[in-house]
Amino acid sequence: MRANTLRTLKAAGRPIVNAWASIGAPYAVESIAHQGFDAVTIDAQHGMMGFDVALAMLQAVSTTSAIPMVRPSGLIPGEIMRWLDAGSYGIICPMISTADDARALVRACRYPPHGQRSFGPARGLLYGGADYLHGADREILVLAMIETREGLENVEAIVGTDGIDGIYVGPNDLALALGHLPANESVDPTMRSAIERIRAVTVAHGKIAGIFCSDGQAAAERVAQGFDLVTPGNDAALLRATMARQVEVVRSVSVE
Amino acid sequence: MRANTLRTLKAAGRPIVNAWASIGAPYAVESIAHQGFDAVTIDAQHGMMGFDVALAMLQAVSTTSAIPMVRPSGLIPGEIMRWLDAGSYGIICPMISTADDARALVRACRYPPHGQRSFGPARGLLYGGADYLHGADREILVLAMIETREGLENVEAIVGTDGIDGIYVGPNDLALALGHLPANESVDPTMRSAIERIRAVTVAHGKIAGIFCSDGQAAAERVAQGFDLVTPGNDAALLRATMARQVEVVRSVSVE
Amino acid sequence: MRANTLRTLKAAGRPIVNAWASIGAPYAVESIAHQGFDAVTIDAQHGMMGFDVALAMLQAVSTTSAIPMVRPSGLIPGEIMRWLDAGSYGIICPMISTADDARALVRACRYPPHGQRSFGPARGLLYGGADYLHGADREILVLAMIETREGLENVEAIVGTDGIDGIYVGPNDLALALGHLPANESVDPTMRSAIERIRAVTVAHGKIAGIFCSDGQAAAERVAQGFDLVTPGNDAALLRATMARQVEVVRSVSVE
Amino acid sequence: MRANTLRTLKAAGRPIVNAWASIGAPYAVESIAHQGFDAVTIDAQHGMMGFDVALAMLQAVSTTSAIPMVRPSGLIPGEIMRWLDAGSYGIICPMISTADDARALVRACRYPPHGQRSFGPARGLLYGGADYLHGADREILVLAMIETREGLENVEAIVGTDGIDGIYVGPNDLALALGHLPANESVDPTMRSAIERIRAVTVAHGKIAGIFCSDGQAAAERVAQGFDLVTPGNDAALLRATMARQVEVVRSVSVE
Amino acid sequence: MRANTLRTLKAAGRPIVNAWASIGAPYAVESIAHQGFDAVTIDAQHGMMGFDVALAMLQAVSTTSAIPMVRPSGLIPGEIMRWLDAGSYGIICPMISTADDARALVRACRYPPHGQRSFGPARGLLYGGADYLHGADREILVLAMIETREGLENVEAIVGTDGIDGIYVGPNDLALALGHLPANESVDPTMRSAIERIRAVTVAHGKIAGIFCSDGQAAAERVAQGFDLVTPGNDAALLRATMARQVEVVRSVSVE
Amino acid sequence: MRANTLRTLKAAGRPIVNAWASIGAPYAVESIAHQGFDAVTIDAQHGMMGFDVALAMLQAVSTTSAIPMVRPSGLIPGEIMRWLDAGSYGIICPMISTADDARALVRACRYPPHGQRSFGPARGLLYGGADYLHGADREILVLAMIETREGLENVEAIVGTDGIDGIYVGPNDLALALGHLPANESVDPTMRSAIERIRAVTVAHGKIAGIFCSDGQAAAERVAQGFDLVTPGNDAALLRATMARQVEVVRSVSVE
Repeated sequence: MRANTLRTLKAAGRPIVNAWASIGAPYAVESIAHQGFDAVTIDAQHGMMGFDVALAMLQAVSTTSAIPMVRPSGLIPGEIMRWLDAGSYGIICPMISTADDARALVRACRYPPHGQRSFGPARGLLYGGADYLHGADREILVLAMIETREGLENVEAIVGTDGIDGIYVGPNDLALALGHLPANESVDPTMRSAIERIRAVTVAHGKIAGIFCSDGQAAAERVAQGFDLVTPGNDAALLRATMARQVEVVRSVSVE
Repeated sequence: MRANTLRTLKAAGRPIVNAWASIGAPYAVESIAHQGFDAVTIDAQHGMMGFDVALAMLQAVSTTSAIPMVRPSGLIPGEIMRWLDAGSYGIICPMISTADDARALVRACRYPPHGQRSFGPARGLLYGGADYLHGADREILVLAMIETREGLENVEAIVGTDGIDGIYVGPNDLALALGHLPANESVDPTMRSAIERIRAVTVAHGKIAGIFCSDGQAAAERVAQGFDLVTPGNDAALLRATMARQVEVVRSVSVE
Repeated sequence: MRANTLRTLKAAGRPIVNAWASIGAPYAVESIAHQGFDAVTIDAQHGMMGFDVALAMLQAVSTTSAIPMVRPSGLIPGEIMRWLDAGSYGIICPMISTADDARALVRACRYPPHGQRSFGPARGLLYGGADYLHGADREILVLAMIETREGLENVEAIVGTDGIDGIYVGPNDLALALGHLPANESVDPTMRSAIERIRAVTVAHGKIAGIFCSDGQAAAERVAQGFDLVTPGNDAALLRATMARQVEVVRSVSVE
Repeated sequence: MRANTLRTLKAAGRPIVNAWASIGAPYAVESIAHQGFDAVTIDAQHGMMGFDVALAMLQAVSTTSAIPMVRPSGLIPGEIMRWLDAGSYGIICPMISTADDARALVRACRYPPHGQRSFGPARGLLYGGADYLHGADREILVLAMIETREGLENVEAIVGTDGIDGIYVGPNDLALALGHLPANESVDPTMRSAIERIRAVTVAHGKIAGIFCSDGQAAAERVAQGFDLVTPGNDAALLRATMARQVEVVRSVSVE
Repeated sequence: MRANTLRTLKAAGRPIVNAWASIGAPYAVESIAHQGFDAVTIDAQHGMMGFDVALAMLQAVSTTSAIPMVRPSGLIPGEIMRWLDAGSYGIICPMISTADDARALVRACRYPPHGQRSFGPARGLLYGGADYLHGADREILVLAMIETREGLENVEAIVGTDGIDGIYVGPNDLALALGHLPANESVDPTMRSAIERIRAVTVAHGKIAGIFCSDGQAAAERVAQGFDLVTPGNDAALLRATMARQVEVVRSVSVE
Repeated sequence: MRANTLRTLKAAGRPIVNAWASIGAPYAVESIAHQGFDAVTIDAQHGMMGFDVALAMLQAVSTTSAIPMVRPSGLIPGEIMRWLDAGSYGIICPMISTADDARALVRACRYPPHGQRSFGPARGLLYGGADYLHGADREILVLAMIETREGLENVEAIVGTDGIDGIYVGPNDLALALGHLPANESVDPTMRSAIERIRAVTVAHGKIAGIFCSDGQAAAERVAQGFDLVTPGNDAALLRATMARQVEVVRSVSVE
């Protein structure tokens, strides 16, 4: 079965740079996947695409060596199963708040006897290889998002759950949950210590500590802080920013 | 009928900033249309979308005040008619090389007696208004791309054709046609004088001089040169660039 | 943030006329949205479209001043979140039977601290505006469908739930639940008094009383009865009826 | 091979009632096809759908006994071939102005030796049957639209062309071509005599005389005039009209 | 209402041959539906299509006499309702493990008073007929998949549940659940007796005993064993196999 | 730029095995591309997909080492350009009948100065690489279909045209053109000698001789005959055949 290079990177202590795809377009995500990312995550929670478009996006990512992952809309086993069958090599599941949630997530992602995923790997077989059944539980990454107050309190139990490969911090939702405004790189001490605590616990368990960041600069700082997997911004936000910048440049100069 | 604000901007001597959409995604183009552009052109020549996606993209642009335009795949009357019926308020037609081409383009875009467009405005009616029939020939822009050696030679005749509202320079194809490598802002003297000649002739006729540019800075320089309508880059190229930049920043810092 | 004009209409005591879109086609719904409706609801419960088509439909409605709303397939927080992120400015949630259901619905629609909606407004940001986070909970309408026997019994508690902006009666399902055949304008006394009771309780709470109707005439009668928001028929049913009528007219005359 | 019932109706002297589908939605067109039409024509000229949606629409029509036809965007052999391969049982080709056009249309629709259609019937085989090759030229209808001044002058030659099964009048474009405003049921004497002449010549040749009409009443009058095939309105226009009517009824009553 | 011919076949003691569609393409499934199957099941659990494509697939199947069924992604009432509204005439629900599950499944598929399906049959009305409300509960098949250890233990209770029309064995998941490798036609005695037990109990209740098989030969053996409904393979697997075989033949001969 | 392995295979004298994709489904074509083919051709002439689906299919093929090619609907430069921009690495153009046709085909596929392809490689850049401009004319294959009487007569001139990389025989259309029934492997002496003549002339010019075949056995015989590139059947036909075979096996055994 195709090896999940993200595990190799973690083992080697090298940072994993992950793209975030919310634009529903196979051409956009293929363009992104060619820019040197180690992984590309299709956001089926807040992203603007349904299954048919997301399937083509997973295929588009698979034309490159970037590992395709999906964030499902929630801890919904039937939906998670479909993303895995569609060839996702990792699941970043939102709103994991308890060890029970974490165990349910693992069950949704793993075949018996380690879980309850139903067999029928479809496109997963094409992407992973003919021995998919035997390698899927070993290769596919299961990352739990910690972004609620309860999740923060239970971070030890969540990270310690067998089959959880790592944590992915959603700083915006976590900020909202803790009574702050959404902010990826909050300088609020509570937020900073919360995020650092999640990171430290995760790394102590030898698992992947991941986080969403505003852009490359912020992501670099998270790597410096000790995060293993960083997402340097959302595709739609970056597209908006670069487009707005071009308009601004034209107009500012033309005005003179 | 809804007024075409691009005509107003030209009349007022204010630059028209046009976005270029090659990514086949209504969400992407709606995101772009919100960044302050005066117009958004959907590229049905080199862009990665078919009619069904392009239709939704035209609708997405129409949620804003940006004027939706389309570049068809060529001087194909049946195709141009479909883009107009779908609500495009401007046509930027590639590869117009002769006055005959220019007249054929006008015929494709105008109703009798000024042309041969078939009646059945469909979504055009929703976007333009109930009096579409009476206003369409007045509001919809017809821009001819000059990007061949023959087109350059015939620039006077093309620009002078009744019903042609302006010219749009395709610097890449023009460079190729003149024996150079594609370059939006070529410093080659032949290229520079060719582009300036097209601009000067067009402006002398009181028509819109438009051009594709690499980015906002280049577009600003074209405005300074006297161009009326500038496109500060292609969406996919700008997306690739900003994504590559984020990866570069993460990796450069992480390496240290 | 863009104001939700439906709130203004309610405050002014003016009826809200809402279209019902079950045909999965951006062009159809844009055509409908141009006919003078105050709102257009995309039916993701019984309507024939998935997310990708519904997204383009929301964009199509947004080309007009009609407020876009969605009926989700059920009280499924992850799905409701996706419709809000896609730019829906109202949720009409089916099968709300208890105060617990009503509270869960509010939690799904509101950000912390009023709810548990996850942050990532995507297209909502484009439609609502840059200050979406601060205005979303204020502008977006949350309507609970009362259409079960239990819901009818709990109407006071449901309507009284904080964050519920109003009620939308599903007369067909309510009739089925009460042992009758589906009928939008049932003359059965039980049905009539049930519907009147829901309306009266809702209006007494100062909230929006809405209802599905067979057509314009029936809707006018509901307005006269005191309903605030009426839906004068389903698009597919109205299309079928007008088409059948044309055939009937041709054939009846031709036979003579 | 499946018989084309439109030929049977013509032979029996019974009117053919044809629906016109411009909304790109398989569900809409299937709803329409169930209302008693003899045929349903998908409008690939002014209609709002590309190939992928039109294919599903042809399948949707094929769930009923209504005969599926397509109006291509023009006299483009490669496009006409694709509609036939997709299972269209009739072609209504716009803008046929000369006998040469008519012969080119026949060549596009017929296999050698009667034409130059390329072999590869794809879905046509599923709809028509295993003996498609032997029956296609016999069953599939070829209708030429007369809607230009030149077409009107050449009506005898066009109708008399071998392989042309009938004429379909496009009253709007014909009116424009003759210097009038578009009108399906013009009372202008020139228009009336032009349309009657086309009808009379066609019927004299024993071929199908078809025409687009505003609605059922107008279509009934065309049948009374001697037309064989009538289209009682366009789906989007009828949908808009019925929707506008519902709004009008609600608002007129509510105002009282 | 259109009769469900699968009930007739069961009553007549004739085998039901069911196709399995996992390829998301209306043309592929229409091609399959023409090959003599009694039913075609669209696999919305492991199959590669979302709602929009599946809707067109249901329409494509409905061009033939094969009965369209759907396997939902799980026991999710809101999703099952959508497949029924889209015109599915049978539900094959995965992972039914208890009598409670079976009752919940029946409730999701039946209208009150037999269940809690919400009324709004949409395309179901077109496929089933105008009296859909009165016939739906009688015609639509409800099949429970038994594929877990718990399901096997509860087979009597599940089969005995009112409203359950039959059982469909998922041999792969059942094998995994019982500690074996996935195998459709396992020769393991435990597997053989488990499957035979499910079949025998089901038939004893006069209900439909169905099962997935690798291919036609295996399906024939299941019929001989006494199964009522057999699926002779998955479309994607059969396509892969025939494609691989053609390559192998070319290469083996060419090498010589 | 990515090397076109089909050129390498030709140079090495090894047969090229090409799949033929007419089913509009990215999952189907990705499944096929994994079965050992050297190339996969998407049939945009007789195949059942529009641009949006075909784009995703090209991406799906690009997840494997099989070379993606497209058959356009005809010798239409604007369309051919779009398939190349979408990442097709070869064009198999139908109905090339004269040296003029062949030259027009080359012009459509090559950049200036060798042709008139417009610059804007879009997805081609992602698939081919950053030096696409410099390698495209070298790597992309241009194959002319000879399938008319005129094409047969002009085979020397067509094959001898600079820039034509080979010939692809369409045996069905050629048979029709010569007055026979369509047959891939006709035993008619005229057909056999016509096909052998095309092959011999092509090979004599050192160019690729390709042909469509019914299946793997027929393709093997064509390889033995000296063809370089063979297509062992059409995906939809092979799917229908294997599906029909499974039904036949179940029914034949069950009857006993």
